[in-house]
Amino acid sequence: MVGMNEPVLARLQQLMTLREEVETLGSGGPWIPAADWTDEDTHLILHLDIPGVSADSLELLEEGSTVTVSGERPALARLIGGDRPAGAFRRSFTFPQDVLPQTGEAQLRHGILSVRFQKRHPTIDVHAEDLDAHPAE
Amino acid sequence: MVGMNEPVLARLQQLMTLREEVETLGSGGPWIPAADWTDEDTHLILHLDIPGVSADSLELLEEGSTVTVSGERPALARLIGGDRPAGAFRRSFTFPQDVLPQTGEAQLRHGILSVRFQKRHPTIDVHAEDLDAHPAE
Repeated sequence: MVGMNEPVLARLQQLMTLREEVETLGSGGPWIPAADWTDEDTHLILHLDIPGVSADSLELLEEGSTVTVSGERPALARLIGGDRPAGAFRRSFTFPQDVLPQTGEAQLRHGILSVRFQKRHPTIDVHAEDLDAHPAE
Repeated sequence: MVGMNEPVLARLQQLMTLREEVETLGSGGPWIPAADWTDEDTHLILHLDIPGVSADSLELLEEGSTVTVSGERPALARLIGGDRPAGAFRRSFTFPQDVLPQTGEAQLRHGILSVRFQKRHPTIDVHAEDLDAHPAE
């Protein structure tokens, strides 16, 4: 898509992900793992719930302002009932703040994938943190 | 509830769980982890997706034909967005087949809790399994 800039591509990606999510609401469709972002002043961290997924199957693809995580876990043999998703998943995210390209460091622990990205504009708010830690009562 | 027999109690428990699930559909309500049952001839196994939950916080309660699992994981500090559930969860299950009381053995690995229960009536189907493994083509 020559000529489209990164924000437009990122928005398209978001819309495609949204459409996938709506299409699979309440059905036994594709697996879309739950995710959170946290802010650690110098880094942004993406947390993804992927219990039972092996590190070998994971792929991270960073493109401009988006990052896409994909992987899979095998379906259980001799299944007699339940609602756990299985098979392949793919989910794209737009970085909530600017990050430095290709700084992502991934770790898989207790079924949660954490990826740390270095922020382009680190937050300096030591005093604000002190205030938050001891709110006036 | 003196006088109510176990099947009735189990059914009530199921209805209560169902109501909880319906009430929290699509909302940021209580966390209801996904679960599967598998059959391993001599055992039934309950698989529960609980990434990030520590073994210390887990409780299993077996009552007649139901088993209830509860636990929690802490909310992330400095959260700036996302959809991962956090806090306490509790989910009850009716055993899909009869099990021997108090035979459950739990294991927590890669964010999945597996609990093995000994079946009251083990399945003996070696020949059927052989046929399944090599279907006529």
